[in-house]
Amino acid sequence: MRQWVLASRPDGLATIDNFRLEEAPVPEIGDRELLVRTLYLGVAPVMLRYMTNEASFEQPLEIGDVMHGRGVAEVIASRHPDFRPGDRVQSKLGWREYAKIAPDDPYFLTYKMRNTDLPASYGIGSLAMSGFTALIGMREICQVVPGETVLVSGAAGGVGSQAGFVARALGAGNVVGIAGGPEKCSLLMTRLGYDAAIDYKSENVREKLEENFPDGIDVYFDNVFGEVLDEVLLLINRRARIALCGRISEYLKPVAEHHAFRNLGRLGLQDAKLEAFFVYDYTARFAEFEDILANWIRDGKLNPLEHVLEGLERMPEALIGLYEGRNAGVAMVRIG
Amino acid sequence: MRQWVLASRPDGLATIDNFRLEEAPVPEIGDRELLVRTLYLGVAPVMLRYMTNEASFEQPLEIGDVMHGRGVAEVIASRHPDFRPGDRVQSKLGWREYAKIAPDDPYFLTYKMRNTDLPASYGIGSLAMSGFTALIGMREICQVVPGETVLVSGAAGGVGSQAGFVARALGAGNVVGIAGGPEKCSLLMTRLGYDAAIDYKSENVREKLEENFPDGIDVYFDNVFGEVLDEVLLLINRRARIALCGRISEYLKPVAEHHAFRNLGRLGLQDAKLEAFFVYDYTARFAEFEDILANWIRDGKLNPLEHVLEGLERMPEALIGLYEGRNAGVAMVRIG
Repeated sequence: MRQWVLASRPDGLATIDNFRLEEAPVPEIGDRELLVRTLYLGVAPVMLRYMTNEASFEQPLEIGDVMHGRGVAEVIASRHPDFRPGDRVQSKLGWREYAKIAPDDPYFLTYKMRNTDLPASYGIGSLAMSGFTALIGMREICQVVPGETVLVSGAAGGVGSQAGFVARALGAGNVVGIAGGPEKCSLLMTRLGYDAAIDYKSENVREKLEENFPDGIDVYFDNVFGEVLDEVLLLINRRARIALCGRISEYLKPVAEHHAFRNLGRLGLQDAKLEAFFVYDYTARFAEFEDILANWIRDGKLNPLEHVLEGLERMPEALIGLYEGRNAGVAMVRIG
Repeated sequence: MRQWVLASRPDGLATIDNFRLEEAPVPEIGDRELLVRTLYLGVAPVMLRYMTNEASFEQPLEIGDVMHGRGVAEVIASRHPDFRPGDRVQSKLGWREYAKIAPDDPYFLTYKMRNTDLPASYGIGSLAMSGFTALIGMREICQVVPGETVLVSGAAGGVGSQAGFVARALGAGNVVGIAGGPEKCSLLMTRLGYDAAIDYKSENVREKLEENFPDGIDVYFDNVFGEVLDEVLLLINRRARIALCGRISEYLKPVAEHHAFRNLGRLGLQDAKLEAFFVYDYTARFAEFEDILANWIRDGKLNPLEHVLEGLERMPEALIGLYEGRNAGVAMVRIG
């Protein structure tokens, strides 16, 4: 089988030279372990931080180690009583075609997919971390109440392409997305359930926010951070909630170049909340989340948008593409 | 009777010339109204914003109007079935010796004191807004868990002088206060239940924070805002909670001089929360809060520190003193 290992550490955005595709034997499994065949692998901005060992929650990655990553897989052989061949699982597989999984080891965070009537690829997006993240941010952190106004940045991305649907399913009123470029902004309104779109690359964000939120912003789901968040603070309503999900505007910048926030006092004036969160702090509720999202998909309330590349060899390209902002929807690579 | 009216609007910190003490008749009461005699009046930093009509939750104050303010009073005459002469009430009295109160009007937010075995002055502090604020910040917003490390700024002030006790009552481990000057810092440790004190006027706050929190900060109760909050962000632990209670470092500064926060990204890195809150959003729970705090006082877990001035004529001095930071504890004026 083939697998991707870390060849060298990136300086800023990764390049293809930081990865090496190599051959390896299909693993042997021991007691209470599974052999699985990878169907789809996901990519997430945080993977760049795995490569430099800056993600405190992930195991260190040494040069030559298989790249960390989660995916959907089919069980091929099982020596664990809770799993059978043919089961569909979500787990920390690594960037490889076959993986040995120890379901009892919490590191792998292995769960059996519950809603197997839906496509396996949803196990990368809506029924996995990016869907759970959209749900946690809107429902648990922001506690969207029917009729509230909602803004999402990075709205065409893996999480953002689902956050608008989640807000709408919770009864939000005006749901506005921010994205880069006319194609993505068009997608927001025609395909991703947003009422309006702001193109941060060509439009004056402050003016457009004022135009789209004449009565202020109740909820902001932020995937970007930086200057846009600072502008949003000027428009928040009393007891507004801001979910800090990602900071893609800053991941590649040295700390000295990080944005300095001038308008943070607005939180105090408006008795508002700014809360960052992490999907892995909610593992005990993943089954509940999967079922909620699966039901919304069946009811047509959530229409997952996927950006699928074909073949393990395209993993580095899929990761780098996240930072180049070329694609919309949940990025993934089909392996199986 | 005597009362203080707004004589002119302050430019920055108020001066005595912005107030005028005048004589007025004791009010007549109508149906479902009370005549009350003021026992104590409180002062709060926000009152400066009443004088310039910058507090959105308070009714506008015109030149010649009686200054807004809450206090503890004794019912002298009642035409309301729920109140009798001799009852002790907390209400929006205004800066005057006698007041007419309409308990049915939510504007006055009138409640009968429940724990009348305790001194009436506690109706300004621990059993009223400043005590409730300390409790809400530590318990509802920060949800202090036993053993957690806690930092409080403005720790010798009306709210801060209670926040340390509240943290301790909830089981906090290391509880550290920040205040200005050696006398206040000494009080924090000898009288106000803090384990350690940092003098922001003479000490290097960053170094002292690092020294006092070798394992990081779980909870920060912030009465000050600005540069100290920015330093604290560098030391927060995973899922830290910051309650934004006051911003006294900025109330008198023009917006252009407000602090620009360089370290806000730390919230994202640590999946932490920054939440502002306002005691009046919790009115439905005031009876519960009063009883909790009263029980802690009886059990010796909360030892209220009061700074009492004598006589209505000293109200402006009490308010201005809050900004000059001369006093420790809950500032109030005894009227009755």
